Amino acid sequence: VPLSPETRRLLAQIGIPTLANALLKRGLRNQVMQDVHLAVPGVPRMVGEAYTLRFIPAREDIDTMAAYASPQHKQRRAIEECPAGHVLVIDSRGDARAAAAGDLLIGRLKARGCAGIVTDGGYRDMAGVMAVGLPAFQRRPAPPASPIVHHPEDLDVAIGCGGVAVYPRDVIVGDIDGVVVIPAHLADEVAAEAYETMRYEEFAEAMIAAGRSIYGLFPPTPESRQEYDAWRLARGD
Amino acid sequence: VPLSPETRRLLAQIGIPTLANALLKRGLRNQVMQDVHLAVPGVPRMVGEAYTLRFIPAREDIDTMAAYASPQHKQRRAIEECPAGHVLVIDSRGDARAAAAGDLLIGRLKARGCAGIVTDGGYRDMAGVMAVGLPAFQRRPAPPASPIVHHPEDLDVAIGCGGVAVYPRDVIVGDIDGVVVIPAHLADEVAAEAYETMRYEEFAEAMIAAGRSIYGLFPPTPESRQEYDAWRLARGD
Amino acid sequence: VPLSPETRRLLAQIGIPTLANALLKRGLRNQVMQDVHLAVPGVPRMVGEAYTLRFIPAREDIDTMAAYASPQHKQRRAIEECPAGHVLVIDSRGDARAAAAGDLLIGRLKARGCAGIVTDGGYRDMAGVMAVGLPAFQRRPAPPASPIVHHPEDLDVAIGCGGVAVYPRDVIVGDIDGVVVIPAHLADEVAAEAYETMRYEEFAEAMIAAGRSIYGLFPPTPESRQEYDAWRLARGD
Amino acid sequence: VPLSPETRRLLAQIGIPTLANALLKRGLRNQVMQDVHLAVPGVPRMVGEAYTLRFIPAREDIDTMAAYASPQHKQRRAIEECPAGHVLVIDSRGDARAAAAGDLLIGRLKARGCAGIVTDGGYRDMAGVMAVGLPAFQRRPAPPASPIVHHPEDLDVAIGCGGVAVYPRDVIVGDIDGVVVIPAHLADEVAAEAYETMRYEEFAEAMIAAGRSIYGLFPPTPESRQEYDAWRLARGD
Amino acid sequence: VPLSPETRRLLAQIGIPTLANALLKRGLRNQVMQDVHLAVPGVPRMVGEAYTLRFIPAREDIDTMAAYASPQHKQRRAIEECPAGHVLVIDSRGDARAAAAGDLLIGRLKARGCAGIVTDGGYRDMAGVMAVGLPAFQRRPAPPASPIVHHPEDLDVAIGCGGVAVYPRDVIVGDIDGVVVIPAHLADEVAAEAYETMRYEEFAEAMIAAGRSIYGLFPPTPESRQEYDAWRLARGD
Amino acid sequence: VPLSPETRRLLAQIGIPTLANALLKRGLRNQVMQDVHLAVPGVPRMVGEAYTLRFIPAREDIDTMAAYASPQHKQRRAIEECPAGHVLVIDSRGDARAAAAGDLLIGRLKARGCAGIVTDGGYRDMAGVMAVGLPAFQRRPAPPASPIVHHPEDLDVAIGCGGVAVYPRDVIVGDIDGVVVIPAHLADEVAAEAYETMRYEEFAEAMIAAGRSIYGLFPPTPESRQEYDAWRLARGD
Repeated sequence: VPLSPETRRLLAQIGIPTLANALLKRGLRNQVMQDVHLAVPGVPRMVGEAYTLRFIPAREDIDTMAAYASPQHKQRRAIEECPAGHVLVIDSRGDARAAAAGDLLIGRLKARGCAGIVTDGGYRDMAGVMAVGLPAFQRRPAPPASPIVHHPEDLDVAIGCGGVAVYPRDVIVGDIDGVVVIPAHLADEVAAEAYETMRYEEFAEAMIAAGRSIYGLFPPTPESRQEYDAWRLARGD
Repeated sequence: VPLSPETRRLLAQIGIPTLANALLKRGLRNQVMQDVHLAVPGVPRMVGEAYTLRFIPAREDIDTMAAYASPQHKQRRAIEECPAGHVLVIDSRGDARAAAAGDLLIGRLKARGCAGIVTDGGYRDMAGVMAVGLPAFQRRPAPPASPIVHHPEDLDVAIGCGGVAVYPRDVIVGDIDGVVVIPAHLADEVAAEAYETMRYEEFAEAMIAAGRSIYGLFPPTPESRQEYDAWRLARGD
Repeated sequence: VPLSPETRRLLAQIGIPTLANALLKRGLRNQVMQDVHLAVPGVPRMVGEAYTLRFIPAREDIDTMAAYASPQHKQRRAIEECPAGHVLVIDSRGDARAAAAGDLLIGRLKARGCAGIVTDGGYRDMAGVMAVGLPAFQRRPAPPASPIVHHPEDLDVAIGCGGVAVYPRDVIVGDIDGVVVIPAHLADEVAAEAYETMRYEEFAEAMIAAGRSIYGLFPPTPESRQEYDAWRLARGD
Repeated sequence: VPLSPETRRLLAQIGIPTLANALLKRGLRNQVMQDVHLAVPGVPRMVGEAYTLRFIPAREDIDTMAAYASPQHKQRRAIEECPAGHVLVIDSRGDARAAAAGDLLIGRLKARGCAGIVTDGGYRDMAGVMAVGLPAFQRRPAPPASPIVHHPEDLDVAIGCGGVAVYPRDVIVGDIDGVVVIPAHLADEVAAEAYETMRYEEFAEAMIAAGRSIYGLFPPTPESRQEYDAWRLARGD
Repeated sequence: VPLSPETRRLLAQIGIPTLANALLKRGLRNQVMQDVHLAVPGVPRMVGEAYTLRFIPAREDIDTMAAYASPQHKQRRAIEECPAGHVLVIDSRGDARAAAAGDLLIGRLKARGCAGIVTDGGYRDMAGVMAVGLPAFQRRPAPPASPIVHHPEDLDVAIGCGGVAVYPRDVIVGDIDGVVVIPAHLADEVAAEAYETMRYEEFAEAMIAAGRSIYGLFPPTPESRQEYDAWRLARGD
Repeated sequence: VPLSPETRRLLAQIGIPTLANALLKRGLRNQVMQDVHLAVPGVPRMVGEAYTLRFIPAREDIDTMAAYASPQHKQRRAIEECPAGHVLVIDSRGDARAAAAGDLLIGRLKARGCAGIVTDGGYRDMAGVMAVGLPAFQRRPAPPASPIVHHPEDLDVAIGCGGVAVYPRDVIVGDIDGVVVIPAHLADEVAAEAYETMRYEEFAEAMIAAGRSIYGLFPPTPESRQEYDAWRLARGD
């Protein structure tokens, strides 16, 4: 089943840690990519289903510039075939010595209506990438050309990225905190539950700013939940 | 003896490298945390005495969500017991795979009048942390929940953080350069001496901008110090 | 032969990845420094010939504060002798535990008309460094004093920096993507060729933003080059 | 309760992976130290209860040679106070730049009847350490003197070592595979269960050497367990 | 085409560096795995065609002990399906926090006539692995159970291992120096050429031991090749 | 002044940690190379003066196989020019992706009467290196050809190796613990003092093996020194 518009709408409002907590309650401890960061300051939170590209190490006789120009080249196919609303997730094996993509390819992803791009390697043309404005997440900038280090081997298979398993159609959410991977079958329930948590945390944040102790407030207690209900009621939302 | 208001006032004006140099003159070569960075752009320089929290690795049967909710949980106690004007320094063993704290806890620290928070791991809810505005220093953002990796074991004992020994009541100063640890008994003399160095460096900076060589100016010579005295006098400060 | 004003003018307009590609065509795969980043947001692209400083590890009986004050100290000589229009490139052996330079020295470099400073270690006094405004590239900030870790051993010899060979007079170009090293004898031809590539990429970027596929556009084909010529003609540039 | 002689006897026969599996069945996924290796080839498997020493980073004015000579120095006290039959586990924060101990101290541990020594740092005098013959586990050899990097701060508190929580009295088992930490309250049941697994694996190993497939053999099935019972019976043990 | 017996026979006599040099002459600079070491001292040189297993990170709801027991589990299928004479090469993403295989599985590989096993992660039950005696190469021992970190996703696809591209049927050679990957279509010519180089190096080694300079001897010159021919003739081989 | 035969004789009997301690007493805290290990098990302790070779990163147009064959190539010159009794110390910038030397070159060093070879990178042809039997120290084996990563730039200049400054003629001592660098002007006094310490430690070791506490024995006290004198006397040496 595709990601529902309602779940997408909810996820766009929820921070990565709140989603990670909802996954942790379900026994999933390792769903946040490690050392993968937002590269385009100020963009809205990214939400979309995963479409993947798997790199392996390059070999000089295979990864030539001629191969790169071919329409069958899988990095290029990934850019043209990642469905609208999806996030292209690239397994760079954590290696940022050469680029996973650059501003022209990322511009094309945006023009095609994709939701974002994620890798545990890096991008080149960072000024251009920021100008494009598509949410992009990486380890660090990587100016050298992709074929120096990476060979695109597979499209839309299960991969690892930032130490996390990513299966095609998993739901990827990213913001200034990083990137979380939500297994597809859990997206609706995690979104709904985390949304409620998030709303409670707005209340907790207001209480804390007003001088209240975290005891009895965070994590919530039955009493603090009642208070929260009253607070919500009083605010009319 | 607590940190004097005068020393606090001076330290708030002095950069980390100048303080590190004053410590180096006293034979202390390793007082600047390695790879610990300001996470909240634009906040004023942080100054305060160290109150510490020591994490050890988590164990699944001990570090449950139920334990986390207890008022005896030492991470929570650290937030409620760190004295006003102090800096909470957390030994995360350099591990940023899970959070040392998040925006609600850091918000409470701020509401309680604490001076800042430092760890060699990371924080979650970075948008919230920036909104709180308390000076916060970390290795990198860490969205997963704390109990996945960390168990809070001790309050206010001597710890390591960023490769530096931190004893309770040491004076912690942090800015865009990073974080320096000043042993408590040296705080007054280091502050006084470094303040004078800093004022000389303002003079040197002006001279350099005006085209003068660093020779005979930096480090200072008896002649350049005389010039500096005249320059100060001429500026009336 | 010194760097020609025309080549300098061209290079100031070309991104690091485009230059790296022109070098790759010539068989040079390893000319972009790894994990060396722009430290002064917003400065124009840096272009200049390399003047180098080689650090080795410090030894306590040699690297004293007295030695540091001497006009024969090679770090200080590097600052006073790096020619105008050149970039000072410092081999810190990738070690950012202590500073390669600070704001006063970098201020002097700027006053002397140098083009920038690069190291695979770090700088201290980052607020001052940003105020100076000279393009500066580093691994991460490094507040401790240089002699704690580094001994300046040689001026203007071939070095490694960020994993790349840097020979004196190589042309160094740096921007938000990082730093590329162009062998001196290739600077003119690489600049000319990359400038043309860059202009084509402006066209490709416009086409992609308008919804066109990357196939047949990037990398260029004979047909797309004709289109490009027409596009340029139509724009009158 | 102290470690029973029977459990100690069983554990001395069981490999680290088999123990790790029994812990995994109980939800404990992180009980094997990472990158901590046997330093004394050929010694028997080490088994003993944990007695701990916690290092923090050294500070030059505290960690002098005079302090090192004091009978109150906690590294020295650890050597003299670790109970017979126990394993001294030292938290070196993963730092092998200076020694956690040397051959004389390890020789004294052996003379006192201790079972072994473990650290995530390193030892000095490796020829002497091998001559002593006490089981010793480390990251890598570390010849520099301890006070250059380490300050002994606490005795017999909960620590981290090799990324694993170690509580005093946890049972430590080490062999050529590495070191596993068994929570004290689980030692008896884990030993008993893992011992049975180990005996089954001897059967499986013999079957595999005889050409049988791993399917239906490993992991065991009800049928293969029956076969195993018959095999044991036939062997008379 | 399968690996010919003659090429297999030659490769079994040639060291990794000599093979790497023959590949370098053909423009292939990155065919030796990084930080992958022989784990079984004293075994003969390993030669065989690559059969691959690709791991991705584990997920707790998928990588259960029940899944592990299934005959469809791909790690188990790899052990039972890797053809005789082949080397099982496992992409562990460089992660040795949990095992890629253990002594029972490796014992089965040996019983099935496979030539060896290679991973950029690690193995468990090292005493058992050494007892089995199959050539095994790894980063470091990894006692925890595989499903804690690894999920077996694909059989016999192109992978990365130790930073090198490995395509099914590439020829894998391993000894005390490490592991080299020879593209299948180059195996015959590389083996033949490297064999001759190796024989010349025996001559060079004898000359050097007898006191001769490396100049004019290594690399070979036309004159030294003539000498070599005479030397071979005189030795009658 | 060259290394005296007497000092060489003493140093050949003293362990690395004892030498490091004598240097530490003189304020030199960083004279032991980090992560540089003995590669040839069982060789006697290495002692000799440093002759150095400095590598920088390779560049494809400079570091060709033709350049490698030239008698002017500095790696080859290092092998032919390192004086007898000296240790060749190679600065590989900690990079073991390609070899610093192989068995033929190391064989030539031995034939020329050199005392050993040290690098913070690695060697190729490890079976051959062990057969040669010259003491050799490295990070890890490195089978790829040197010119893939390294360019030999300088002979017998001050370098860094394993994080330690090495000046030509410094005295290099290496054994199973690692490698220590003794500044040339301190060699005689350090050797004499450390030799006495070593003899005392033989006494301490015997006492400890006999059941005595480390208190009052290690470090020595005036009383224990008297006992030691008596013990030496009684043993007649």
